[in-house]
Amino acid sequence: MPEYTGYAGKSLEFLKTNNVAVGSTVKILTDLTFSGIIMPRYEHAGEKHIVLKLNSGYNVGLEIEKIEKIEKLPVTEKIIDEQLRLEKNTSLPKILLLSTGGTIASKVDYRTGAVTPILTAEELNSSVPELAQIANIDTEVLFSEYSENITPNHWLQISKKLLEFSNSDYTGIIIAHGTDTMHYTSSFLSFALAGYPIPIALVGSQRSSDRASSDAALNLIGATKFLIESKTRGVYIIMHHDESDETIACHLGTRVRKNHTSKRSAFQTIGDDPAYIIINDKIQKNQKDNYFKVKEFKPRTNLDTKVALIKYYPGYDPNLFQKIIEMGYKAIIFEGTGLGHIGNTMYDIVKKANEKGIFLGMTSQCIDGRIRMTVYESGRDLLDLGIIPLENMIPEVALVKAMWALGNSKDIEGVKELMLENIASEISY
Amino acid sequence: MPEYTGYAGKSLEFLKTNNVAVGSTVKILTDLTFSGIIMPRYEHAGEKHIVLKLNSGYNVGLEIEKIEKIEKLPVTEKIIDEQLRLEKNTSLPKILLLSTGGTIASKVDYRTGAVTPILTAEELNSSVPELAQIANIDTEVLFSEYSENITPNHWLQISKKLLEFSNSDYTGIIIAHGTDTMHYTSSFLSFALAGYPIPIALVGSQRSSDRASSDAALNLIGATKFLIESKTRGVYIIMHHDESDETIACHLGTRVRKNHTSKRSAFQTIGDDPAYIIINDKIQKNQKDNYFKVKEFKPRTNLDTKVALIKYYPGYDPNLFQKIIEMGYKAIIFEGTGLGHIGNTMYDIVKKANEKGIFLGMTSQCIDGRIRMTVYESGRDLLDLGIIPLENMIPEVALVKAMWALGNSKDIEGVKELMLENIASEISY
Repeated sequence: MPEYTGYAGKSLEFLKTNNVAVGSTVKILTDLTFSGIIMPRYEHAGEKHIVLKLNSGYNVGLEIEKIEKIEKLPVTEKIIDEQLRLEKNTSLPKILLLSTGGTIASKVDYRTGAVTPILTAEELNSSVPELAQIANIDTEVLFSEYSENITPNHWLQISKKLLEFSNSDYTGIIIAHGTDTMHYTSSFLSFALAGYPIPIALVGSQRSSDRASSDAALNLIGATKFLIESKTRGVYIIMHHDESDETIACHLGTRVRKNHTSKRSAFQTIGDDPAYIIINDKIQKNQKDNYFKVKEFKPRTNLDTKVALIKYYPGYDPNLFQKIIEMGYKAIIFEGTGLGHIGNTMYDIVKKANEKGIFLGMTSQCIDGRIRMTVYESGRDLLDLGIIPLENMIPEVALVKAMWALGNSKDIEGVKELMLENIASEISY
Repeated sequence: MPEYTGYAGKSLEFLKTNNVAVGSTVKILTDLTFSGIIMPRYEHAGEKHIVLKLNSGYNVGLEIEKIEKIEKLPVTEKIIDEQLRLEKNTSLPKILLLSTGGTIASKVDYRTGAVTPILTAEELNSSVPELAQIANIDTEVLFSEYSENITPNHWLQISKKLLEFSNSDYTGIIIAHGTDTMHYTSSFLSFALAGYPIPIALVGSQRSSDRASSDAALNLIGATKFLIESKTRGVYIIMHHDESDETIACHLGTRVRKNHTSKRSAFQTIGDDPAYIIINDKIQKNQKDNYFKVKEFKPRTNLDTKVALIKYYPGYDPNLFQKIIEMGYKAIIFEGTGLGHIGNTMYDIVKKANEKGIFLGMTSQCIDGRIRMTVYESGRDLLDLGIIPLENMIPEVALVKAMWALGNSKDIEGVKELMLENIASEISY
């Protein structure tokens, strides 16, 4: 039965009239000529265009009104090479690969046109055969979400799954994850599973696995080598280090940000070199201290999302903050200016929030550098109003930590204590 | 009459009992011994401590209860050297220096203890004598605010003042400004005064002018040289380029961010080299195109602050966005994830906002790189819901531009047009 997912009105009519559907390989003539596969669309899409996946891997939206001609091309069946079902080599270390979705787990199925997770053991082996040479990899698909759609509930699902394997014979665990919010997830896992006995590597890619320029394979290989050889504990993000296709960076999961929208080396450690650099078979260690500051594995996997991140800017309306208080928020993370400031028009409402027992933490929108609220009058005023300076914690990390601290404390004093305790290298000196 | 600005209750009593006041030079014994000048405090400060400016330039708050002894020291009068009232050399180019406050304009008056602007012509010449060798500098104090307290109203005051000098014989204008929000101000001036006939340089410092490590002098000298020699138009931010005390960077006012809380080289051009680098007397130009994309000077100095910046994160509550809509906001700048995404839990409320005629613009919290909403389904959905991708505009710049666009358009179509028109290099390729 032909599939029309996401098409309605005119665009649906167009597909039916032309006897094509999602998954059809077509040639389309507009002002240019396009060849590709018709893709499913999401429910909110308008009805004026159809979406085509080009051979380059890019999707393009084409306006129906501008299409002069559409021609259905014969289907090229893709034969899965059964030869590639490699036998496992039981002498190699065991690695668990959990997939949560994202670009790294995306591949166009050239028969249906749908984007599907590729991470069955066989398909993985066939797409990155080098992995089977260095590890026995078990895989499991947890869910399949682009990471902009990941929510704190997904964090909890991942934690729960990881808890199952804290006493296993795996050498390490890879989590395939979309890059958009990978650093939020790595932060939550760092706090919730502090002291986790084997290393955890979050791996993403900036180009989907079916594109020639994909960084998925190299990132996965780098992560696997790291897990086997580093003999460490911690939560790391492992991605391309630079524009070369040779160097992989391994970032502390609480000291990293996605700092570029599209580069394969989008992730950067803030204020330091990456913890490890992997060049071919050489692993260079820059990390000086243990990732976890706790000695024992002590999972605390609750969270409470009543935390708001307020990025301060000139003209920020204190009434907006007033609304946030009225909505019952229990913690605020300010992304202040410079050393940790917000304008004096905010003082009255901050005072009120403090009196209500709301946790008020200060980070900086500068991203790099330390909060120091004792240098200027503004900072000292804010200290007096009850704002807690959060050292050099990255704003996104402070936000996630506050959700976690709220979920695992009895009262605001407990939240304050947890926020200032260095749990997983989120504060550095 | 003794001055006690900001002191109340116990702290006021303490000063009076010990016969000291704001501006007194004292030696204080607690667990350590401190010498310095008692500073005024701000109204919200608690009553438990007094503030002392140490000779190092740092301020320290000392708890009254822990003070064992306080001793008043004799006042060392600072003699202003009348010899330094240099005669103006009328053959040199004329530069106007406007002061708005901030660290660069801060200096402790060692007689009163108050922080005052130093920028009278004479004091400036005496503190940076090199300036008088290269330019005739007229100075004017506009106001005196740390830049975390700068509001859009201050932007309007600065614009109004600059309008007075658009037909003057000045070669260029320096604006001394606090660093925290200097890039917001430079953005507003860029849009409001697009095409301004002479170059404008915003200059700040990360260490106050009375400290040995101050970067104020070098930044001012660099800015003056740049204004005289570049023969260009535009709004630039001029600060230390690196940790050396030799290299000054000149950033496009719409492509720059404060990326470190404390380094003297805190400002960085996003995604490119700085427009100019000044090393001693050498000015190296990297800027390729004209700063202003308009040919004629056409001031449009209105603004409307009903713009909210929403930084999206996992767990962001759509009800918070709902409140913002209810409060009558007319434009939203999203700081989305990656290429320009927000989670699908936001779709319904975004649709509603679009139907209400609210401008919805997308930027990225990655800061560097371009918005591309056609690559993934999420992005295409958001396009369909009416979100406008703002190319590689920096989120803070997009926010300021939206305030400006709202103030200078008749309707939302006008806002959309202005937001996508490259006015002052805020979009680059």
